[in-house]
Amino acid sequence: MYTVDLNCDMGESFGAYRIGNDNEILHYVTSANIACGFHAGDPSTMRQTVQLALEKNVGIGVHPGLQDLVGFGRRNIDISPREAHDLVTYQIGALFAFVKSEGGKLQHVKPHGALFNMAAKSTRLSEAIAEAVYKVDPELILYGLAGSELVKAGKKIGLRSAHEVFSDRTYQQDGTLTSRRLPDSLIENHESAINQVIRMVKEGKVTSLQNTEVRIQADTICIHGDGKRALEFARHISQALKNAGISTKKISDFL
Amino acid sequence: MYTVDLNCDMGESFGAYRIGNDNEILHYVTSANIACGFHAGDPSTMRQTVQLALEKNVGIGVHPGLQDLVGFGRRNIDISPREAHDLVTYQIGALFAFVKSEGGKLQHVKPHGALFNMAAKSTRLSEAIAEAVYKVDPELILYGLAGSELVKAGKKIGLRSAHEVFSDRTYQQDGTLTSRRLPDSLIENHESAINQVIRMVKEGKVTSLQNTEVRIQADTICIHGDGKRALEFARHISQALKNAGISTKKISDFL
Amino acid sequence: MYTVDLNCDMGESFGAYRIGNDNEILHYVTSANIACGFHAGDPSTMRQTVQLALEKNVGIGVHPGLQDLVGFGRRNIDISPREAHDLVTYQIGALFAFVKSEGGKLQHVKPHGALFNMAAKSTRLSEAIAEAVYKVDPELILYGLAGSELVKAGKKIGLRSAHEVFSDRTYQQDGTLTSRRLPDSLIENHESAINQVIRMVKEGKVTSLQNTEVRIQADTICIHGDGKRALEFARHISQALKNAGISTKKISDFL
Amino acid sequence: MYTVDLNCDMGESFGAYRIGNDNEILHYVTSANIACGFHAGDPSTMRQTVQLALEKNVGIGVHPGLQDLVGFGRRNIDISPREAHDLVTYQIGALFAFVKSEGGKLQHVKPHGALFNMAAKSTRLSEAIAEAVYKVDPELILYGLAGSELVKAGKKIGLRSAHEVFSDRTYQQDGTLTSRRLPDSLIENHESAINQVIRMVKEGKVTSLQNTEVRIQADTICIHGDGKRALEFARHISQALKNAGISTKKISDFL
Repeated sequence: MYTVDLNCDMGESFGAYRIGNDNEILHYVTSANIACGFHAGDPSTMRQTVQLALEKNVGIGVHPGLQDLVGFGRRNIDISPREAHDLVTYQIGALFAFVKSEGGKLQHVKPHGALFNMAAKSTRLSEAIAEAVYKVDPELILYGLAGSELVKAGKKIGLRSAHEVFSDRTYQQDGTLTSRRLPDSLIENHESAINQVIRMVKEGKVTSLQNTEVRIQADTICIHGDGKRALEFARHISQALKNAGISTKKISDFL
Repeated sequence: MYTVDLNCDMGESFGAYRIGNDNEILHYVTSANIACGFHAGDPSTMRQTVQLALEKNVGIGVHPGLQDLVGFGRRNIDISPREAHDLVTYQIGALFAFVKSEGGKLQHVKPHGALFNMAAKSTRLSEAIAEAVYKVDPELILYGLAGSELVKAGKKIGLRSAHEVFSDRTYQQDGTLTSRRLPDSLIENHESAINQVIRMVKEGKVTSLQNTEVRIQADTICIHGDGKRALEFARHISQALKNAGISTKKISDFL
Repeated sequence: MYTVDLNCDMGESFGAYRIGNDNEILHYVTSANIACGFHAGDPSTMRQTVQLALEKNVGIGVHPGLQDLVGFGRRNIDISPREAHDLVTYQIGALFAFVKSEGGKLQHVKPHGALFNMAAKSTRLSEAIAEAVYKVDPELILYGLAGSELVKAGKKIGLRSAHEVFSDRTYQQDGTLTSRRLPDSLIENHESAINQVIRMVKEGKVTSLQNTEVRIQADTICIHGDGKRALEFARHISQALKNAGISTKKISDFL
Repeated sequence: MYTVDLNCDMGESFGAYRIGNDNEILHYVTSANIACGFHAGDPSTMRQTVQLALEKNVGIGVHPGLQDLVGFGRRNIDISPREAHDLVTYQIGALFAFVKSEGGKLQHVKPHGALFNMAAKSTRLSEAIAEAVYKVDPELILYGLAGSELVKAGKKIGLRSAHEVFSDRTYQQDGTLTSRRLPDSLIENHESAINQVIRMVKEGKVTSLQNTEVRIQADTICIHGDGKRALEFARHISQALKNAGISTKKISDFL
């Protein structure tokens, strides 16, 4: 029997601004990465999102981002490892308080956007992030790009770490994602995306753009929550995994 | 034997900007109110301030403020009770993470500036703040202006609540502080300020500007940390309290 | 022949966050109030909105707000007249640069949300705002609530000032808007809203909630741009005004 | 007769936070680069700094920075040329309004910190910045690192552009500054710093760390304004230039 976690970014609204279909997408995912006010989200949005996640009994994760609201945390900022350490600590705490206040428990930490991407390649940033997580709560699970520095840093310090794969992105022969700046970075076809994911979960392999077989570990699959099509895809993939004999559970139930 | 807590705002630096003499003032106070990034402070400043406070073994408090960095949290913002609730929850969590990360424990929560002043007079804001604190951790002590709505709301929900007095401010006959917009709001003379405080602690009384005796409870005294004179005054008051037979301890040791 | 200006708030998107249907609503209005980054908007949104407004040849206005992105500038902040003066100056300049860069010309200034409402009642705030506008460019037209302190302050300093009326809000017998916190503050029925506006333009009168006739000057009508219904209403009112023999023009063409 | 401009960053205070000795340093410099609220500064600080600069009759420059207050604009952010273009336009306008309001005139634009450094090496960023300046006002002078892409882009589009040199930094044999991360990047000795500057102005040469002669054009010298020593150095260099037969004037008087 195969098991995988389905995670999605949430709580990205800010004040009068709305992003995402949190309420609907929560039917299909098993873990939620909740924004903490740096790249998206605000205190009241965080509380509401935590309440929704608790109702649906999904795993609740901190989604710390760079302090760049206007850039949605997607632009690299040349921060020091110490700055990364401290902004992750801060954001874990902020979400922890809402989860505690609402009677729940934090499950994981998944850095957002540029922080996630920079950490994937930087040992120093990854170690700073992993240490920040460990020092607040060594029971937290750290999500990183499958095979990345972040997953390695998590394991090294003693955290349970989850390898994350993407259904709708293509891979290079070294196991990294094809840059979004390149053509062919996205898999537009739903069937292909789903087949790629099923194979990653069941066989631990993915076919790279260079047409080579690459070994990859798939503990959790990232789903995008924004847009109407995203919702449809979430339902689609959730059903397809079941049909393929893969059960979806929150990561803390099986890692 | 009399006992009182001496508290001071700290961690108010932000990025390249420096405010306060935290390291020096910590010799004279027993509790520190640490800014959490809304009206002042940033993640790295928070960590450093927590480390300093732990070294000096003072009580560590959350100092949540309005989201108004340019106004230093001193301008009233017409927030709803729900917004107050959520921004207090957020900021408690943020500081909690640093304290946890550094091996310490939170002692108290003292709202900052305009939030403190608005809460003093508003039952609804005070109840929202007290509930936020209680839901994250019912062991936290809530600081409010002596006799204010905030102290009442804290007690009502079941929090230990501390009545705070000011050494360098004059009082009105109804027990409130004289508005800073009025002349005679400040006590410039150090001796007078210290005598007022000693009398508040020992006799539970203060002489109002209207020359009447007002009953007041003094659990903790607010010291200002900014400026050279503040440091001198902190040393001064700390010594004068000892000479008067009043010991200074962090609030969790005696409330 | 009657003439009136139809104005609408625009450029309220921020980074990845989208608000409004600027492109569509521009077909029906004659003047655009463009957010300047304090309560909404960002530099790139400002440029795009200026380009759209120039294409459609509508009057371009500065829409300065309080520095409160999370509150969308709708929460009163207790700012000083000097702070109001300086934040209006700043935002006029910011939008001016985009308009200059794109080959256009600023027409007017209309404060946003809480700043607009606070100014309506405060002579000191209104004088500070009017002076800020005048000192940057005395040719700018100042929009204020019909009959308010802001319009008075504008005229006093020598600015052309426009009385603004609302189609979808009810009025009190003293000529002020019914507070949104009260029932009956909004006119939900499109026909009633349009009839109220037509009467304000043609007869200079409005029937208050207390059923009295109130004199009111209607130089410009505020249209809300957000939501599908808003677009429909804009089309509706634009057509109804024409049918009633009222032409709509940007304010600088007729004031 | 030799002439050079002495420029200094100013108006970097923010709300309750103070940085710099603007009032004193203004005695020694001929041009002021005024922060515009993105990396430092706020509307009221901008107005005060403009007033000071006008009193002292120094050239007034826009000092646009990245939107990174906590990092003081010193951390590289991976912005697009379009974002650079728009944030420069915005900040030029913001300062323009204060200068207009106070009866003055803008002289120049000098990007701050990371934006300055990124532009020095990037043709695309530099062209975006130069175009932004040109489109708002082609009379503005653009400051860039001597020999950098920014100066080239300025000249290419038709702006007067000023080559800026540093007195207290060492140079590499390719004419670039030695990175601050390397030892020997700073010239600590005042005499050496002053001699380097005099030679750059008079001979158009600097001796690199590799001991080679490098051609360099010195239209304007950057002075640092923060700290007690900075003030002393400003006085020092100002006097030494006079003694060496070099007059200091604002750049618009001689470029």
